[in-house]
Amino acid sequence: MRTAFLRLGAYIMGGCVMVFLPLAAGSADDDAAPIFGIRLPAGYRDWQLISVAHEAGKLNDIRAVLGNDIAVKAYREGTRPFPDGAIIARLAWEYVSSAENDAVFGQTQSFVPGSPTNVQFSVKDSKKFADTGGWGYGQFEGGKPNRSEELMITCAPCHARVSSDHDFVFTRYAP
Amino acid sequence: MRTAFLRLGAYIMGGCVMVFLPLAAGSADDDAAPIFGIRLPAGYRDWQLISVAHEAGKLNDIRAVLGNDIAVKAYREGTRPFPDGAIIARLAWEYVSSAENDAVFGQTQSFVPGSPTNVQFSVKDSKKFADTGGWGYGQFEGGKPNRSEELMITCAPCHARVSSDHDFVFTRYAP
Repeated sequence: MRTAFLRLGAYIMGGCVMVFLPLAAGSADDDAAPIFGIRLPAGYRDWQLISVAHEAGKLNDIRAVLGNDIAVKAYREGTRPFPDGAIIARLAWEYVSSAENDAVFGQTQSFVPGSPTNVQFSVKDSKKFADTGGWGYGQFEGGKPNRSEELMITCAPCHARVSSDHDFVFTRYAP
Repeated sequence: MRTAFLRLGAYIMGGCVMVFLPLAAGSADDDAAPIFGIRLPAGYRDWQLISVAHEAGKLNDIRAVLGNDIAVKAYREGTRPFPDGAIIARLAWEYVSSAENDAVFGQTQSFVPGSPTNVQFSVKDSKKFADTGGWGYGQFEGGKPNRSEELMITCAPCHARVSSDHDFVFTRYAP
């Protein structure tokens, strides 16, 4: 699995990405994320909470990670690798200071979501996405997939740097 | 409603809190939060997401706000005041730097939940909690109510400082 990732990385470095990437779905589909063919999962905003995070630096967002039933069950029971059908949704918003809350507290302390930035999905399908650790990826903005292949080819190599003990997933469950 | 809050505040200032507070349930109940009698709502960890936040300063936590079906529906439809039966859950964890994530990103940027600190609930019952804007409050640690009355009397006066347009609720819905 790691070998596949490294091979993918090497191809990216070598500049011959398009030929060797796992083309899971027709890339002409405007509703699907490129390369992996992920579509926006219906009802994902209703999914249960896995965890939250703040990414500082260039991203500077605040985020929630939700999961469909398969993903949340696997998280809670510690099932790794995640079973096929698991989907993890990462919602992110601009990280903004809440003037309204701070006025009540009398100091700058409250940071809350501003405008949504994007929603990313990790979809587990060990056969379809065998070359990328069993995971396919997609990013959506305003309900539409980001169509940049340059962006999408960065997902798998980065997740490959997470320990395989965690099945290449960054987020841990927050009880 | 604001008058009731102010009156409560004045009583607190005056040091004669116990006589005038809304004693909604027997305070001898070890499973119930003092003053308001709130019990830990079953299954709250499965509720849908309202928003997330980071509170810096003395609290220094990262948090998720979840709602039961009545609360989430009211948030999404903009129904104010919230209908009776709405419950808002605020989960908080220590705000910690993720060494594991930062190692992948090559810089300190990722802040994630550490140990849980406490879970707070706002329960809407316009009759039972009429003296505190229709809301009762409770704080739980490790599944058990915090039994400090000194703590619990701070909830309503602070929420009273949020605009009544928002029905005395701090958190806004993050789409």
